[in-house]
Amino acid sequence: MIATDALVIGAGPVGLFQVFELGLLGIPAHVIDSLPEPGGQCIELYPDKPIYDIPGTPVCTGRELVARLMTQISPFKPTFHLGQQVNVIEPQPEGGFAVETSSGTRLLAKTIIVAAGVGSFQPRRLKLDGLGVFEGTQLHYRAPGADALVTYRHRRVLVIGDDDAALEAALALERAGAQVTLMHRRDEFKAAAVTIAAIQALRANGRVAFIAAQATGIEQRDGRLVALQVAAADGTTPSIALDALFVLTGLSPKLGPIADWGLALERKQIVVETASFETGTPGIFAVGDVNSYPGKKKLILCGFHEAALAAFGAAARIDPDRPLHLEYTTTSPRLQRALGVATGS
Amino acid sequence: MIATDALVIGAGPVGLFQVFELGLLGIPAHVIDSLPEPGGQCIELYPDKPIYDIPGTPVCTGRELVARLMTQISPFKPTFHLGQQVNVIEPQPEGGFAVETSSGTRLLAKTIIVAAGVGSFQPRRLKLDGLGVFEGTQLHYRAPGADALVTYRHRRVLVIGDDDAALEAALALERAGAQVTLMHRRDEFKAAAVTIAAIQALRANGRVAFIAAQATGIEQRDGRLVALQVAAADGTTPSIALDALFVLTGLSPKLGPIADWGLALERKQIVVETASFETGTPGIFAVGDVNSYPGKKKLILCGFHEAALAAFGAAARIDPDRPLHLEYTTTSPRLQRALGVATGS
Repeated sequence: MIATDALVIGAGPVGLFQVFELGLLGIPAHVIDSLPEPGGQCIELYPDKPIYDIPGTPVCTGRELVARLMTQISPFKPTFHLGQQVNVIEPQPEGGFAVETSSGTRLLAKTIIVAAGVGSFQPRRLKLDGLGVFEGTQLHYRAPGADALVTYRHRRVLVIGDDDAALEAALALERAGAQVTLMHRRDEFKAAAVTIAAIQALRANGRVAFIAAQATGIEQRDGRLVALQVAAADGTTPSIALDALFVLTGLSPKLGPIADWGLALERKQIVVETASFETGTPGIFAVGDVNSYPGKKKLILCGFHEAALAAFGAAARIDPDRPLHLEYTTTSPRLQRALGVATGS
Repeated sequence: MIATDALVIGAGPVGLFQVFELGLLGIPAHVIDSLPEPGGQCIELYPDKPIYDIPGTPVCTGRELVARLMTQISPFKPTFHLGQQVNVIEPQPEGGFAVETSSGTRLLAKTIIVAAGVGSFQPRRLKLDGLGVFEGTQLHYRAPGADALVTYRHRRVLVIGDDDAALEAALALERAGAQVTLMHRRDEFKAAAVTIAAIQALRANGRVAFIAAQATGIEQRDGRLVALQVAAADGTTPSIALDALFVLTGLSPKLGPIADWGLALERKQIVVETASFETGTPGIFAVGDVNSYPGKKKLILCGFHEAALAAFGAAARIDPDRPLHLEYTTTSPRLQRALGVATGS
């Protein structure tokens, strides 16, 4: 069980800046995110697209913004727990909250700041009658790991998707010796040019099959998934025999377990007050796109403000007797020492 | 009389970003500031000092932040009215506000956003009985212009101050042929090394006199200021004969006429609500250090958030029937055209 004064749920831009504002107040933070790297929507939805409304930054991409924030918070050395989502938040009788993630990480946090954006990014599920039970055995929503590459050698594997993740999975499985079929509803891909070229080369020499089709049903025998029924773009409705199915059709955000944490919600947003962005549960704050209050605009720059005020709110919950003065990074020797930029004696 | 939908009072970082947020909503703005250039406290108080807490900008100086904001708002071509302060704001019976500045600029504004920080920066006055009447004739609180340099040739001029402005004034007056005495309470200066070196060289060869002293009174004859009485650091109390006096001891912020605009104040701050940062006077908003609300922290980054919400509030006042949707600079073709960054057809 990890004990921490502050737990930030969500490593998007606002969650990252939350670490900074907590750090200025001398509060180290743990950060949990469902994605495998920090950045949230900026990395997942628009890593290479320009953002023009970060104040003082006339233009930057999502990836650049995240890199700058990671540099900015680096003096405060946050502990990241990535690739896992918070399943349970349980208020403790002695104060604070017990938290457990999908990977089994357990924390005891005095305060929690939810910076969960639109929720956790989850793989888009393929919805077909009877398919769900095969998840984790023959059906996979994540790229094949080392084990799967060994397991599916000489097996028939169907990969559904059109992006880098799907194409790279098909390439890796083919290299590992699987008989790969790639499927997407159109014969078009949205991936790096070099990745698309590699796939087309394998299609040209017959080492990867491709079918333009959409799934319509499954065939099973003796409790095993044996084929996918599809409606092909050419009007035919074949069945594709398979030993394994990889569905890599992108991630979509789900509010998910946030709805189970016992916080007051309004249209799927967490209701907060605007003096410290605390929720109805004392000690739990919510900042960024996940919260709701009169006048709320879902802008990154608004989340930054919310994080600043939430840090003061959390500090007051962590130690109600502590005097909290606003200091400025430009003039405060204490803050400059914390930032590692103090000069001279 | 200039008619405008939006008038921003204050060209500090928050006032500048206010122009950006109004611009995104298609509302062009006029901006008034008492200083001769945009930037407010950033330029006046810490142009070359580092700021570490602008989100996404790990470090920048006050001057750099202002330059970046000026670049960011440049697509919206604001009209600046600098070196003047707002003296009068008068609500009009037909709606909107008549505004008049100290330079006589008159505007009719549908909405006003006060981003006045700690007030307007005014030269620190030298408070001595009977001195005030000489302001503008023999007493000056601004650096000597071309006229003064001609006027004071061969005259005795006393310059009070220890910073770049004071030392540069002394240098300019000496070059113009005045007999210059520089006075500061200690024989120490806070100015660029090269400027201090120039002064010390002139002191060494007797072309500029220096006295470590503080003013205690004045001497006048026939309605003219003829000498300043001082208490010198060496314990003596001489009178310094003079034809002109330049007091260049820095600027200090004064709430000034803001207190006369009829807005509800609380400890010299303008009270606002937090959904759109509107004051008690519909159509007048206040953002940045000048406002007050529960949880308020005087941080630039908080002012940015306030400016974003105030822009939506102002837009609703300017045209109550206009549907206001939040659009994103990353994805909205309309915003990208407004920003001048639209690509393709």
